[in-house]
Amino acid sequence: MEIALLGGTGDIGKALALRFGRDTDVPLAVGSRDAEKAAGAATAYEEELEEYGIERSITGADNTTVTAGADVVVLAVPPYYVTDTVEAVVDNLDDTIVVSPAVGMSGDQDGLHYKPPSNGSVAELVAATVPDGVPVVGACTNLSADRLADLDESFDMDTIVFGDDEDAKETVSGLVSRLEGVRTLGAGPLVNAAEVESLTALLINVAQNNEDVHDAGVKFV
Amino acid sequence: MEIALLGGTGDIGKALALRFGRDTDVPLAVGSRDAEKAAGAATAYEEELEEYGIERSITGADNTTVTAGADVVVLAVPPYYVTDTVEAVVDNLDDTIVVSPAVGMSGDQDGLHYKPPSNGSVAELVAATVPDGVPVVGACTNLSADRLADLDESFDMDTIVFGDDEDAKETVSGLVSRLEGVRTLGAGPLVNAAEVESLTALLINVAQNNEDVHDAGVKFV
Repeated sequence: MEIALLGGTGDIGKALALRFGRDTDVPLAVGSRDAEKAAGAATAYEEELEEYGIERSITGADNTTVTAGADVVVLAVPPYYVTDTVEAVVDNLDDTIVVSPAVGMSGDQDGLHYKPPSNGSVAELVAATVPDGVPVVGACTNLSADRLADLDESFDMDTIVFGDDEDAKETVSGLVSRLEGVRTLGAGPLVNAAEVESLTALLINVAQNNEDVHDAGVKFV
Repeated sequence: MEIALLGGTGDIGKALALRFGRDTDVPLAVGSRDAEKAAGAATAYEEELEEYGIERSITGADNTTVTAGADVVVLAVPPYYVTDTVEAVVDNLDDTIVVSPAVGMSGDQDGLHYKPPSNGSVAELVAATVPDGVPVVGACTNLSADRLADLDESFDMDTIVFGDDEDAKETVSGLVSRLEGVRTLGAGPLVNAAEVESLTALLINVAQNNEDVHDAGVKFV
């Protein structure tokens, strides 16, 4: 089992690299359109983990290369890049689970608003872009990248896992639930994606409107 | 300060009557299109509270009558009845805060899906229906009626309060936060309503897909 974080030089990519790096022994690869940038990020994550006493070798290479070696690829890119990113790696998607953590939102002076693509959700857009038979699982949409990236931060949060392929969901849920302080909960198939992705906008609005809530996460109680 | 629960004979009306009845001394009125049904429900709620050692006098009358005496009216009706209900009581909305707890959803074999009216959300539909100057506050959209209605049940849950009128939000937040185990959090103005209302569908999908979660509530952490 190996995880590739496509767009892994960005906020959520860094967050997941550090947490999977610290809390699991799963081989990790950081991808980027720019192989050099990916290699630099991988080294930086290794160094940060070393500060916490963790020896980790993290691969850094272009998105296409890291996808070839991965069992699970995470589309850690902004929502408007997901189709380009999938298309760039599509030849290497072979028995690969594709994880979609991105959410479409737009902001104005009032707050964040959920803006799904015309497919209904980012996860459904991803599912429409990957070849038939490649399972798409939505996960980590509602985890704060800033909180995850701060390894001094501890928390007790839930994240929702959704998708049409039960085996793929079980694999992703098993991986994500190894992150300390993260519980995974299911929310059914991809057709239920919009309600999950929309939660991210709400979390940001709640954080913006309440002094005692920062980088909000969620717990189902 | 008096609260009228329009459609107060239904699930969320009963839930709020029992909780406000137990946890506050705010005068309560139960409204219905059918005055006799409202009176019967009010008596039933009084009797249930009495079993918990609480002496409470709850008014029951038609929606129009209970609105006349209320400072806060809660539209505890299904989403497709909110406009009819507002129109029936509109002459008695005078310095009255209107609270919208309803959510538009449709269900199929996969789960619940958020289906807002064309105004974008039920709360915005209510705001478009009330006379100018009547403040509309969204609240209690994500509280499980079944859990609230069971007075033996204790919990620690959040509910989101949203709207365009800061004073009205403060009043509603102050009232709702008196319910034991309920914290209120703001999410900004009515234009942010869809992300709040949509959470209710997610809560139901999470409860349906996880054996250890029932009548899910939410806590922002």
